[in-house]
Amino acid sequence: MADYTTGELLKQINLPADLREKISDDQLPQLCEELRSFIVDVVSQKGGHFGASLGVVEMTVALHYVFNTPYDKLVWDVGHQAYGHKILTGRRENFHTNRIYKGLSGFPKPSESEYDAFAVGHSSTSISAALGMAVASNYLQEKDRQHIAIIGDGSMTAGLAFEGMNHGGVENTNLLVVLNDNCMAIDPNVGALKDYLTDITTSHTYNKVKDEVWDLLGKVSKFGPNAQAIVQKIENGIKSTLLKQSNLFESLNFRYFGPIDGHDVNYMAKVMNDLKDIPGPKILHCITEKGKGYQPAEVGDSTKWHAPGLFNKDTGEIIKVTPKSPQPPKYQDVFGHTIVELAEKNNKIVGVTPAMPSGSSLNIMMKAMPDRAFDVGIAEQHAVTFSAGMAAQGLVPFCNIYSSFMQRAYDQVIHDVALQNLHVVFCLDRGGLVGADGPTHHGAYDLAYFRCIPNMIVSAPMNEEELRNLMYTAQAENNGPFSIRYPRGTGVMTEWKTPLKKVKIGTGRRVKNGEDVAILTIGHIGNYAVKATEQLSKEGVDIAHYDMRFVKPIDEILLHEVFSKFKKVVTVENGCIHGGMGSAVLEFMADNNYQAEVKRLGIPDKFIEHGTQDELYNECFFDTEAIITTVKSLVKTAENKASA
Amino acid sequence: MADYTTGELLKQINLPADLREKISDDQLPQLCEELRSFIVDVVSQKGGHFGASLGVVEMTVALHYVFNTPYDKLVWDVGHQAYGHKILTGRRENFHTNRIYKGLSGFPKPSESEYDAFAVGHSSTSISAALGMAVASNYLQEKDRQHIAIIGDGSMTAGLAFEGMNHGGVENTNLLVVLNDNCMAIDPNVGALKDYLTDITTSHTYNKVKDEVWDLLGKVSKFGPNAQAIVQKIENGIKSTLLKQSNLFESLNFRYFGPIDGHDVNYMAKVMNDLKDIPGPKILHCITEKGKGYQPAEVGDSTKWHAPGLFNKDTGEIIKVTPKSPQPPKYQDVFGHTIVELAEKNNKIVGVTPAMPSGSSLNIMMKAMPDRAFDVGIAEQHAVTFSAGMAAQGLVPFCNIYSSFMQRAYDQVIHDVALQNLHVVFCLDRGGLVGADGPTHHGAYDLAYFRCIPNMIVSAPMNEEELRNLMYTAQAENNGPFSIRYPRGTGVMTEWKTPLKKVKIGTGRRVKNGEDVAILTIGHIGNYAVKATEQLSKEGVDIAHYDMRFVKPIDEILLHEVFSKFKKVVTVENGCIHGGMGSAVLEFMADNNYQAEVKRLGIPDKFIEHGTQDELYNECFFDTEAIITTVKSLVKTAENKASA
Repeated sequence: MADYTTGELLKQINLPADLREKISDDQLPQLCEELRSFIVDVVSQKGGHFGASLGVVEMTVALHYVFNTPYDKLVWDVGHQAYGHKILTGRRENFHTNRIYKGLSGFPKPSESEYDAFAVGHSSTSISAALGMAVASNYLQEKDRQHIAIIGDGSMTAGLAFEGMNHGGVENTNLLVVLNDNCMAIDPNVGALKDYLTDITTSHTYNKVKDEVWDLLGKVSKFGPNAQAIVQKIENGIKSTLLKQSNLFESLNFRYFGPIDGHDVNYMAKVMNDLKDIPGPKILHCITEKGKGYQPAEVGDSTKWHAPGLFNKDTGEIIKVTPKSPQPPKYQDVFGHTIVELAEKNNKIVGVTPAMPSGSSLNIMMKAMPDRAFDVGIAEQHAVTFSAGMAAQGLVPFCNIYSSFMQRAYDQVIHDVALQNLHVVFCLDRGGLVGADGPTHHGAYDLAYFRCIPNMIVSAPMNEEELRNLMYTAQAENNGPFSIRYPRGTGVMTEWKTPLKKVKIGTGRRVKNGEDVAILTIGHIGNYAVKATEQLSKEGVDIAHYDMRFVKPIDEILLHEVFSKFKKVVTVENGCIHGGMGSAVLEFMADNNYQAEVKRLGIPDKFIEHGTQDELYNECFFDTEAIITTVKSLVKTAENKASA
Repeated sequence: MADYTTGELLKQINLPADLREKISDDQLPQLCEELRSFIVDVVSQKGGHFGASLGVVEMTVALHYVFNTPYDKLVWDVGHQAYGHKILTGRRENFHTNRIYKGLSGFPKPSESEYDAFAVGHSSTSISAALGMAVASNYLQEKDRQHIAIIGDGSMTAGLAFEGMNHGGVENTNLLVVLNDNCMAIDPNVGALKDYLTDITTSHTYNKVKDEVWDLLGKVSKFGPNAQAIVQKIENGIKSTLLKQSNLFESLNFRYFGPIDGHDVNYMAKVMNDLKDIPGPKILHCITEKGKGYQPAEVGDSTKWHAPGLFNKDTGEIIKVTPKSPQPPKYQDVFGHTIVELAEKNNKIVGVTPAMPSGSSLNIMMKAMPDRAFDVGIAEQHAVTFSAGMAAQGLVPFCNIYSSFMQRAYDQVIHDVALQNLHVVFCLDRGGLVGADGPTHHGAYDLAYFRCIPNMIVSAPMNEEELRNLMYTAQAENNGPFSIRYPRGTGVMTEWKTPLKKVKIGTGRRVKNGEDVAILTIGHIGNYAVKATEQLSKEGVDIAHYDMRFVKPIDEILLHEVFSKFKKVVTVENGCIHGGMGSAVLEFMADNNYQAEVKRLGIPDKFIEHGTQDELYNECFFDTEAIITTVKSLVKTAENKASA
């Protein structure tokens, strides 16, 4: 085990039972400090999500101190704030393997620990999941079980959270929603709900509530079984001071408590303990600060400190390795700069992101053209239908959504965009395996789930120039819905500001001539095929390589050329093997009655864990080595047959 | 043109401009009566949605009277209530073709009329779409344009509507949300929001508001440009009386007005006219009654009168054709009865529907076991994640969602169920082409979009017995996520209460031996293949037929048998041709290096309009005739080759 600063109290805690048995109320603040130091120590050296976990140190300690985990169920929303939870639930000694290949997951994961009640990664699932558990407990006569959803104010903007609240309000269950309000998603939170929460928090009634209402609440435990009457008093107390503000949640029949200071661990524990005695759906509004307790993150840019990479924990300096030679840009930044370049010439272009301005680099346009770029909050469904509405009025929205999050807006793409053949450009960021974020975030399915949608153009660039040209093509005329998918991370061209050129829709390109075997690739993974063909050439195996560029419409002229010439074909895609580009090629073959041996490389039909992208490409057998091996096996069977 | 009762005033209206020019305020009630009679007359003879359109007759007339359509944008949510709108916007004379093959669509459709601002069919899209249009109008400097979303209280429960409100509240646009509150989705509305709206409506402040606040509002137009000050007064007035109730929408920064009587056309027109002068996001809460003005529907079961089929308009008697011989049941009812039968023996089983208890027949279980069957409202995402939460606690939820609505919960299926390999049974109702509801409701894509999800079992029964056996199998042991898809409508077995038998997962069955050609089918459409093989046998062409039963895991033993024996194969599915069962067969062939001529029949890569299911199967070329034609062409090429 690696050696990280582990305080005296933290050392004693292997499981939450230790926390409840060995730590006294007055030791809780110290334990929080130790937990915080441990997180800083490990994350500064190993990387990972940072600000969110620091912000919930006290909340995490209070929850495990008060609730009887794992019998009581904690459902962390999104889950990248659950580092403290992991450390307190038997994973401290392995925590340095967090987000590393074969190591701990960066998110809660039931297969990793019974304390992880539900697998998370995408936002806003916690209320529905905890409600399902609470309803099950009622039905199974386990009525003493508590179910707690811990959800951020950003996650609260997604429709799923509202749906859960709407149902939760009419089920009489032990459901507690802990609203972790830090005014942030990864980027600053947006929307009317955020304004509303800020209103509550900054209003002059805030202190009054703390003093008056929470004094009352403090008495609940003393009153014992007479809790109902106390609740009434509390409610009256709250309503008299906070009527206007508290009412959104009360409208949905949740008892609202707060706001309280999410960094006062003793007070939080006291309140949570009291709330255990109050039946029915409840919401506890806690005010926290991302990066709390680590000065550089507190005073610095919260978005930067969301997942800062490695840093010097003493100076707060984020460690940047300056490469000696110019490096290719991230695809994200090519998108961000190119949309501005295009929008300067085409005044119909607007940009839309659901809460990922920095991740997608749409923040470049938001800064340059604030009236034409919209962060709509964590709300993928709305992002798409809102884009459709704008397109219906003649604008050309570039709607940028991560591939795995686009799953949230699948119906809106079909029903609101494709059915009307509206001119919306979908930029699918994080297409393919994303790396350390793991299975919840891998963009594995989009080629399959978009390919079956009528009117949808499905494309993926092999490099920066192609991305720029596809973006240019997508806006140049009304082609209906046009999707462009690219991976997380850097491309291959240091000189990427190439002149914008129109691409003929539905055309691929021959990257390399060759004999015996043709490799067909889609997107960035084509560069791995380039390396493979180079290596094979050195070994005297000279095969062809085509970059399909479009999965739909697929380039039939190119495919006629391929299947007229080649009887052995390898398809390579950074996407699921069922229904993807390779399947489109098989469909073409069947429709045109071609016979050939086709090996499809891509993401196999299972959930792929986390690791670096190259580790995962290797595991999934579609990296350069895998391509070489596959080609060689095909060449060999050809030779065997020839010599037979 | 057919001859339907068309009143004197209605006759004069070919377009909304006629309404605004030719009809005076005091004629509006008569026009409403004429419009209502016309709808009753046509729908009683031709069928279609009924209750919803009758409920918004006054609202429809008021909207077109007040707003400058089509310049101003009306976005009808769901759209089955838009019959009056269609009749007033140039489609009266064709209205009798509503929902008939090649006739008018049952939903608004921009390609049909410029008055249909946005294509709808699924619920809860209207706010996001109208907001997109409103933001576009702002950007395009068309600031006088009004954008109106007309949304029911049922549709308000879906997360997408909340996402739209959350964004709408912070955009300063001419957005008016008209809340059509009739306490109903197709079935009675459910959830905390419904209770909240009922609270507003039944509270003692209702009349006070009508008398005091709306008197104030009435003065707005007289004050002219001084509207801002008036608004303040109105708001103060409302807030003093309706503070508690109005606050949910006001929390989201929408100005709330109401509730008002949605059947008082003159008053509604007056209020809407006043609201035009009030900038920013607004919500007008109107109380309506489904079926209003048609006595049998008013006093009868609202769900029954949602789409009653043909009826005698004078007596209100719904016309039922009593068949002479016993008929096969609807798949829906087989599901409804079988889940109760299973749940009686397995106490882990629970049922979940998002607002479709009568459509899915889960209402049978809701009646028999009210504590074990949940209608969660129009909230597909929540339905799935809530099911996942219950499954995480060891229950076995049967989550019944229409195929096209499952698109709404795609991420939840992947991220919350499949990733954790939770034991949720997905019953995908309305799989395949649904008929008169048309492209928004066709369940065309599920085989493709489910097939690419790891851990997911994808099955489809060919008849009632198979549906029962698949349901039995799905709950019998924990297989992880298990989907069973079946079409809208009746099966083929009059004696359908067969003994429950376990099916081996991933196995198909040979329906018929034969030579030369093998037909592979999935699901109910297999019965069309049976007819085809019978017909072909009569003509001396004796081919084989296999019912795959599972698309995933696909029956490899069966496929080895098929491809070892047959060089000509036809696949048939009532699903999209891209990525579906046929593609799974091609993938198997490629992986096992089989060569054969494969013709895939299914839904082509375009949106299919409405019509009867058989009309559409014919159009899509996968009905009995199409199968026969395809087989014959294959047999012929075989003969030609043999004789060559």
